[in-house]
Amino acid sequence: MSKYDIIVLGSGPGGYVTAIRASQLGFKTAIIEKESLGGVCLNWGCIPTKALLKSAQVFEYLKHAEDYGLSVKDYDKDFNAVVKRSRGVAEGMSKGVQFLMKKNKIDVIEGFGKLKTGKKVDVDGKEYSADHVIIATGARSRELPSLPQDGNKVIGYREAMSLPEQPKKLIVVGSGAIGVEFAYFYNSMGTEVTIVEFLPNVVPVEDEDVSKQLERSFKKSGIKIMTSSEVTKVDTSGKGVKATVKTSKGEEVLEADIILSAVGIKTNIENIGLEDVGIAVDRDKILVNNYYQTNIPGYYAIGDVTPGQALAHVASAEGILCIEKIAGLHVEALDYGNIPGCTYASPEIASVGLTEKQAKEKGYEIKVGKFPFSASGKASAAGTKDGFVKVIFDAKYGEWLGCHMIGAGVTDMIAEAVLGRKLETTGHEVLKAVHPHPTMSEAVMEAVADAYGEVIHL
Amino acid sequence: MSKYDIIVLGSGPGGYVTAIRASQLGFKTAIIEKESLGGVCLNWGCIPTKALLKSAQVFEYLKHAEDYGLSVKDYDKDFNAVVKRSRGVAEGMSKGVQFLMKKNKIDVIEGFGKLKTGKKVDVDGKEYSADHVIIATGARSRELPSLPQDGNKVIGYREAMSLPEQPKKLIVVGSGAIGVEFAYFYNSMGTEVTIVEFLPNVVPVEDEDVSKQLERSFKKSGIKIMTSSEVTKVDTSGKGVKATVKTSKGEEVLEADIILSAVGIKTNIENIGLEDVGIAVDRDKILVNNYYQTNIPGYYAIGDVTPGQALAHVASAEGILCIEKIAGLHVEALDYGNIPGCTYASPEIASVGLTEKQAKEKGYEIKVGKFPFSASGKASAAGTKDGFVKVIFDAKYGEWLGCHMIGAGVTDMIAEAVLGRKLETTGHEVLKAVHPHPTMSEAVMEAVADAYGEVIHL
Repeated sequence: MSKYDIIVLGSGPGGYVTAIRASQLGFKTAIIEKESLGGVCLNWGCIPTKALLKSAQVFEYLKHAEDYGLSVKDYDKDFNAVVKRSRGVAEGMSKGVQFLMKKNKIDVIEGFGKLKTGKKVDVDGKEYSADHVIIATGARSRELPSLPQDGNKVIGYREAMSLPEQPKKLIVVGSGAIGVEFAYFYNSMGTEVTIVEFLPNVVPVEDEDVSKQLERSFKKSGIKIMTSSEVTKVDTSGKGVKATVKTSKGEEVLEADIILSAVGIKTNIENIGLEDVGIAVDRDKILVNNYYQTNIPGYYAIGDVTPGQALAHVASAEGILCIEKIAGLHVEALDYGNIPGCTYASPEIASVGLTEKQAKEKGYEIKVGKFPFSASGKASAAGTKDGFVKVIFDAKYGEWLGCHMIGAGVTDMIAEAVLGRKLETTGHEVLKAVHPHPTMSEAVMEAVADAYGEVIHL
Repeated sequence: MSKYDIIVLGSGPGGYVTAIRASQLGFKTAIIEKESLGGVCLNWGCIPTKALLKSAQVFEYLKHAEDYGLSVKDYDKDFNAVVKRSRGVAEGMSKGVQFLMKKNKIDVIEGFGKLKTGKKVDVDGKEYSADHVIIATGARSRELPSLPQDGNKVIGYREAMSLPEQPKKLIVVGSGAIGVEFAYFYNSMGTEVTIVEFLPNVVPVEDEDVSKQLERSFKKSGIKIMTSSEVTKVDTSGKGVKATVKTSKGEEVLEADIILSAVGIKTNIENIGLEDVGIAVDRDKILVNNYYQTNIPGYYAIGDVTPGQALAHVASAEGILCIEKIAGLHVEALDYGNIPGCTYASPEIASVGLTEKQAKEKGYEIKVGKFPFSASGKASAAGTKDGFVKVIFDAKYGEWLGCHMIGAGVTDMIAEAVLGRKLETTGHEVLKAVHPHPTMSEAVMEAVADAYGEVIHL
């Protein structure tokens, strides 16, 4: 029986990052993976979707080349080539993780790992033991009872990113990041897309102003949006698929080739031995403390299987924190209130902290500032005037409660707000940090100025 | 004679921003402009060049559409349409400033302003007076004695952005931001471009690693680069222009249609009455204290005419500070060590603080971290793997001495470093600020991790 200091179960952005940090800290480490290194994120999530979206972005430039003084007469997309590029990027990244495992002398054990008592893991009949076992098995697409996935006409994100043929009509159920990104991608490629969202707003976790802006932008680009609506019945008996949608105005039947169900995730906690070991679970999540220790000593859990946001960067941060704590380093608990979230459609969305509504509900007296990219010189020059930056400050103590961005490139701009909030900045300090001109990032400074009645370009 | 609280001479990003802030603070304000509102920045600098560069970026996408699973058979650029778009963007922005002047009840006085004693300004024969006169007359293209500009075959940035006809061959003298941006733009459009740089590296103010990366990228894209070289003689007598270039290997004669001289700027301090009033000048700059007061009470100077970096955002920041001080607000002197600089070619460059060489020369013991975009998932997905983020920390106290970026979108990413440095962050805090995945901004976190031996993806 092979003995390790650390065994990590699952090689997504939680697991493989944890394994690397473990190796850096001197631990003899193994990682168990039943499929491809890198997990959903690298193979079926973050990375390949960004590749698809890049193709969509470039395709939009082809469509609108004239706006930039260019002419394109004969152009097209090759749907299969677009998908192939995306798969290639994913494969390249997965190989990259393979290289990192090797470089860091991490044993990669292929197979399905099942936890045993005594800090052991069974992998398809072979047993491994460790001083510390870290569960990072992640999650998969959640299925609604009313919308069972057949992988063919009713699909999840996984099938959506590798369809053999482009659908002519697509219904996207759910408008979180995943739903919105696929809606944008397929619409851009020429598919007729309808979004069905149960809640009153698309991207319902975002600030309402962001939701409204996205809805406007999406409608302008031809995407149909049905909010406060629900798919109650699906009929796949015919050539395509018929979805009965309950709206505030009554029932409607939509026809499409494919329905993408993007209504959240379900954690992978079945059959991995949690019950045998006695690890406590609440509903769909493994219970952990601030250092990701489960109720059973020697067993830890990080990433999507634990409470916290089900995001790749959260999983990585949790894993690093978990292993650093095991190594005896001084660590501070993760601040789940300062986790950025991103959606990579066009316009992009990025946000961190409280929405205006949340801030009010928590009883804060707030100062709100907003700067539209339509007033930004860089956005004018780049032809990316959709969107804005919105900031929310506590009126009393000046705390930066929330930052909400929608527009071109904002997913790379939110880091400023995350770091600023971590360092407990005041609005005044953001205002007096000289932002370079002309950039989209000036909008952050201007939004803060707006909150304090000092905005220049409005 | 009209009497104001504040008269601002010049309506560039220094002047017009100062005027707006002055108006916000309750001052009766006038601004004097001899040409177009917005100055060089809006009309002949930052903004219209970014418009040209956006067209170049889109044109590159057309050329490389196949890389993204797309096909383009019949495409072209329309040089005049590209220039026209850029001019249109500039005009739109200038009208925007006009609107802001009106909205803020700022009197716009058209004409050439000349300072008089007694805090008066003469504008083409009409006299205005104020309690405070702020000089913000900016700068223009510097002429070398060996390279006199005729506006036709030997030109400055101004002509370069509105040429009636695209040159087939272009020599760019000087490889600061302006030279590099035009070199990239014209090369992208199909012009044969040679850069002649006097110093050993292109973008000589940047960290040497950045210079080398840009040189590699530019050479790959077909731009010829001659460093440690100097144009000693120009012959415009023929159809085109012949430039004698002194290199380390001897003399060479280059032929081209046009030479763009981009060797820095010359301040506009002539004939504006400085001598009459007795305002002290050192070489090309008006001398000011931390609050932009000149030696003569009631006269101030901000922007390119003062020492400090000749950058739009510096001018704006100086102007705001100057007027806030006049208004009696508590202000802190500008930290010229924390001013970001950006170059918007592809790859983009953005940096703040000390280069590695400068840090060593200042005697710091340093920790250097570097993360290449080739190891970034987002860069792989987007096809933007050129470049890196490099960070420099003081080994002893952990101060973030410098941050140097080259790659796609970095001009919007540098704000994080500016704010972090302003808030006196440590590397550890940057590392523990959860950056969203997958973004280019993760490279900042990873570069910091590299400096401290904790990098994950290398």
